[in-house]
Amino acid sequence: MQKPDIIKAGHIELLVTDLGRAKEFYVDALGFVATESTKRRLYLRGLEERYHHSLVLTESDRPGVGHISFKVKDTEDLKLIEELVKKRKGYSDWVDGKESGVGRTLLTRDRFGFPVEFYASMEGANWMLQKYDKYRGAKIMRIDHFNIMLPDVAAAYEWYVKDLGFTCTEVTETEGKNPAMWAAWLRRKHTCHDIALTTGKGPRVHHAGFTVGDRLSIMDCADLLASAGYLDMMERGPGRHGVSNAFFLYLRDPDGNRIELYTGDYLSSDPDWIPIRWKLNDPQRQTFWGAPTPVSWFNEAMNVRSPKTGKFESLSDPEIVDRPDYLLHAK
Amino acid sequence: MQKPDIIKAGHIELLVTDLGRAKEFYVDALGFVATESTKRRLYLRGLEERYHHSLVLTESDRPGVGHISFKVKDTEDLKLIEELVKKRKGYSDWVDGKESGVGRTLLTRDRFGFPVEFYASMEGANWMLQKYDKYRGAKIMRIDHFNIMLPDVAAAYEWYVKDLGFTCTEVTETEGKNPAMWAAWLRRKHTCHDIALTTGKGPRVHHAGFTVGDRLSIMDCADLLASAGYLDMMERGPGRHGVSNAFFLYLRDPDGNRIELYTGDYLSSDPDWIPIRWKLNDPQRQTFWGAPTPVSWFNEAMNVRSPKTGKFESLSDPEIVDRPDYLLHAK
Amino acid sequence: MQKPDIIKAGHIELLVTDLGRAKEFYVDALGFVATESTKRRLYLRGLEERYHHSLVLTESDRPGVGHISFKVKDTEDLKLIEELVKKRKGYSDWVDGKESGVGRTLLTRDRFGFPVEFYASMEGANWMLQKYDKYRGAKIMRIDHFNIMLPDVAAAYEWYVKDLGFTCTEVTETEGKNPAMWAAWLRRKHTCHDIALTTGKGPRVHHAGFTVGDRLSIMDCADLLASAGYLDMMERGPGRHGVSNAFFLYLRDPDGNRIELYTGDYLSSDPDWIPIRWKLNDPQRQTFWGAPTPVSWFNEAMNVRSPKTGKFESLSDPEIVDRPDYLLHAK
Amino acid sequence: MQKPDIIKAGHIELLVTDLGRAKEFYVDALGFVATESTKRRLYLRGLEERYHHSLVLTESDRPGVGHISFKVKDTEDLKLIEELVKKRKGYSDWVDGKESGVGRTLLTRDRFGFPVEFYASMEGANWMLQKYDKYRGAKIMRIDHFNIMLPDVAAAYEWYVKDLGFTCTEVTETEGKNPAMWAAWLRRKHTCHDIALTTGKGPRVHHAGFTVGDRLSIMDCADLLASAGYLDMMERGPGRHGVSNAFFLYLRDPDGNRIELYTGDYLSSDPDWIPIRWKLNDPQRQTFWGAPTPVSWFNEAMNVRSPKTGKFESLSDPEIVDRPDYLLHAK
Repeated sequence: MQKPDIIKAGHIELLVTDLGRAKEFYVDALGFVATESTKRRLYLRGLEERYHHSLVLTESDRPGVGHISFKVKDTEDLKLIEELVKKRKGYSDWVDGKESGVGRTLLTRDRFGFPVEFYASMEGANWMLQKYDKYRGAKIMRIDHFNIMLPDVAAAYEWYVKDLGFTCTEVTETEGKNPAMWAAWLRRKHTCHDIALTTGKGPRVHHAGFTVGDRLSIMDCADLLASAGYLDMMERGPGRHGVSNAFFLYLRDPDGNRIELYTGDYLSSDPDWIPIRWKLNDPQRQTFWGAPTPVSWFNEAMNVRSPKTGKFESLSDPEIVDRPDYLLHAK
Repeated sequence: MQKPDIIKAGHIELLVTDLGRAKEFYVDALGFVATESTKRRLYLRGLEERYHHSLVLTESDRPGVGHISFKVKDTEDLKLIEELVKKRKGYSDWVDGKESGVGRTLLTRDRFGFPVEFYASMEGANWMLQKYDKYRGAKIMRIDHFNIMLPDVAAAYEWYVKDLGFTCTEVTETEGKNPAMWAAWLRRKHTCHDIALTTGKGPRVHHAGFTVGDRLSIMDCADLLASAGYLDMMERGPGRHGVSNAFFLYLRDPDGNRIELYTGDYLSSDPDWIPIRWKLNDPQRQTFWGAPTPVSWFNEAMNVRSPKTGKFESLSDPEIVDRPDYLLHAK
Repeated sequence: MQKPDIIKAGHIELLVTDLGRAKEFYVDALGFVATESTKRRLYLRGLEERYHHSLVLTESDRPGVGHISFKVKDTEDLKLIEELVKKRKGYSDWVDGKESGVGRTLLTRDRFGFPVEFYASMEGANWMLQKYDKYRGAKIMRIDHFNIMLPDVAAAYEWYVKDLGFTCTEVTETEGKNPAMWAAWLRRKHTCHDIALTTGKGPRVHHAGFTVGDRLSIMDCADLLASAGYLDMMERGPGRHGVSNAFFLYLRDPDGNRIELYTGDYLSSDPDWIPIRWKLNDPQRQTFWGAPTPVSWFNEAMNVRSPKTGKFESLSDPEIVDRPDYLLHAK
Repeated sequence: MQKPDIIKAGHIELLVTDLGRAKEFYVDALGFVATESTKRRLYLRGLEERYHHSLVLTESDRPGVGHISFKVKDTEDLKLIEELVKKRKGYSDWVDGKESGVGRTLLTRDRFGFPVEFYASMEGANWMLQKYDKYRGAKIMRIDHFNIMLPDVAAAYEWYVKDLGFTCTEVTETEGKNPAMWAAWLRRKHTCHDIALTTGKGPRVHHAGFTVGDRLSIMDCADLLASAGYLDMMERGPGRHGVSNAFFLYLRDPDGNRIELYTGDYLSSDPDWIPIRWKLNDPQRQTFWGAPTPVSWFNEAMNVRSPKTGKFESLSDPEIVDRPDYLLHAK
């Protein structure tokens, strides 16, 4: 079957309980650029992005994720995806016009329970890349990737690689004689990833990653957040990842939603790329400098709202119970 | 006609008159990683590259360029290109095995007089990205692009965009009521460009661009070259480009061949990217901070050796005689 | 005779013809912190400074310098300086209360024609160093030094070193068999300098240097000024100095007054420091990377207003006519 | 009584059990410059230092500290210190010639049990500051400070401030109605400190701080150590201090001796500097971003060898038992 031509991770909809408070965090502190605001929604983009939004904040009674979203090449690709989703027993709906700035829109609930949107076009917006006098906060450049947590990574890997045409750049395997795939990093655009799959209770979205220009933008952002009263929002980092080689800082927004500031992975344009392999207990896998990841990073993630029912998805535990050993002793 | 699937700028062959002296510059000072050396050749790569080489230095009685080279998806694409070159009255030859590490190789002389090689596979090499204790010099990451100078940019634009499937990210146009295309930046991988076309006496290769990790790597490299006796090798920069937004430093090697250290352009994965347009006399076009480009940058470039005759190509003047106005008064 | 205990370069008064326009440049673009404003004056400080001001902008009908100013240890030192100035046939006056925030103030016209103020105390101001969320523009940290231009550097050297107790860190000498002192860098605080003396038409103040945190603050500032319509204000740099080893960017304010953004010199606490010696024609002396300094940098400087007469000082030519050779051919 | 004129923290002697292994760490990995080596000693300096050494590694059967050392203005100051030490019931000895490159040398055991050396002159060494092609590893610039741990900080504060003439820049106080001084940062040179006093079991030296050029040098060093097999040597950081505002990385050498890489504190030349005050439980005091300090940082320090007996000093507990509250729950 023909594969759809997916271009890149496009945007994410985060649910927030107080839009004003969320604006203070994302716009005033982090420096996202506001493209449009409505009573219940704020559409944001990065300095490098020439499209309407890469982050939508929607006021809701509960935090979490409304949908993650991929841009495809053209509308034919949307139809291909609709067929694939149906074939794999997912749900899909055409929801054109519900989200500002987006063209024809296919909103799906894939069979793993994730709300995933696809679209081929989005309204343009001013390029801020060379408006250096408007740079603020973390100097967010663009959305980079989604990291999702689910019980069956191997099945989701099949869906994304075989059906949707993603390329695998890195994997984490369990220890022992018969290693299982514990996590996978998959890309369409030429970076380390557009989506990462991690074993855990799900369906949940672990975080969305946003690219910043360099390591000092992340250092400066940590200083800024620590000065601006957001000390508790810094969950992990700054540090260097083993996987992806990127420099990172994980933040929780005032509702507990998690985003990553991310910079410094590699170009991965080659179709014959051989995936980098990591073992689950390698101390340099998550943080190249060896610092342990906080327990909250493994236990907490964002719940997702079903496009089909409008309710939050219930969670299932993974069959693979392996976790890094040090967590046994961590608080 | 079906378009070949070209992946990225792959490597360049530079001709040097003293291989030992060239090694001191590229390996000892700039920190390129040596993969293999033969009596007359040195194969080099960047820290991020997992393939045999992105730069070949070949000892020769004259400096210049042996070939520029693109990687394609698979061998079928090579055949498509062979047909296209023939159709456009270029010359091509299968030269498998002449260059170490490369698979099936099509070496062409396109109708503009450039020696352009295509290949689908290359031997692997150790990934140095996370061998930070081996980083040296400018911490070269990977090859990024070629910039070529030729009399008829519009015709070459047609070839690269219509026939070979490149996407245009930025253009420079002449001033006046009927602007002509003076330069164009074209990409296959998701960066600003894999090749840039510039109006001028040609066929000549203006420079090859190599990516470094960040702006401070370029600053550090300038300090290092100034300390190591390579003061005269720094032709232009460090500075910020208007076009591409990248941070740059232009170097001349001991033979006068020109390379660029380059960092900080943008992701350009979108097929519906609208080209950024610049006017030839915009003072921020070449250097965003307004500093004038040295005259040598406009007048000097690398001659190319014909795959067909083994001799250096003779040069033709462009019909478009426009150049930035300030050059009239520059020394 | 006992030497006064001078602490550091304290502040400078710049004369501007349009206070509102100056505020846009210094506060809105460069990010100086405003401590106090009156109808004709704006008192500014850097993020690291815990005192009322290091830069005073005074509205005037002509640009230039009102005074440069040194902080001394206590009021006894002011009296010592008063005696020294008299002994050396300078003029002095106690001008307490004329400048906001400053304690007992001795304003002198030294025998070289410079308006130099001395004071022992200044009102405190909030420390912004760890208010990272308030950082703006070039992230100016503090005043660092003055660079003055005058006909007789050797005599001024005697005054600053022998009478006022400065330590010499670096010198530039003319070429030839009997080299003369062409410029000198003198310090009280433990940096490369508090004042530099340069041979030229004088008395004029060449520039005041302000420290920023790191090299990227200077790069970011160049991007910002180029975006904000201040392209023509960037006179020289960014680059690395040979003398002082500092990274620099020279700016002209909207009135043509010159300041330097400066970072990365060395600690110079040692009383037995042996001065670093440079020859006038060393191509790495001014810019370590070899880039020539623009001619305006040698020809233009800020005129000074006499505390004695209230008029601008007339200028004299130096006896030493040596200048770097390349200026003979520069435009 | 007249105060001696102490210039700065001069150097430290660290005792190592395997000089070859220590050389690999300090020279090959961290990039200290070797000035001289003997069978049992290695004399090292930073890139910015123009003197023989700031770090001496001495092979010994036990790790720890041989002495910390301050440079004074001239030999008269040594005599003043000798008298002061005697008056305060310490021990002192003239040990000229025992350490290479150092002039007249007074080695004391102060009444707190610390081995402290004073000297007025040291042999010169080549300035590497502008030999950028020789920069390696962490690009160590110079020694900055000592941090010592002892039971009675208040008494040591008196000694350093009242007798030796240090200026206090910052203090940490215990919580509650009658706060006690828990730690103090004292300076002679114009930085945040030359010596810090911390409450704890002592006499022990907690660490010696070495200055690097900027934050990225610290980030790069973390990457390098993680690549070079020194993962376990990174005890804390990289991060931003609250106290001092500096950016830091704490390292343990292969013998467990602790050094700090340090950059980005402030100029503190003012004699009327008002100390910055911190409370012991302020979560931003140690790390401005709120990350807790590892327990080892509070419990482990370097033992000191007595100049009087040649044996290691026995330890006493402090009367002030306060420690940051979070340590009660930390592992």
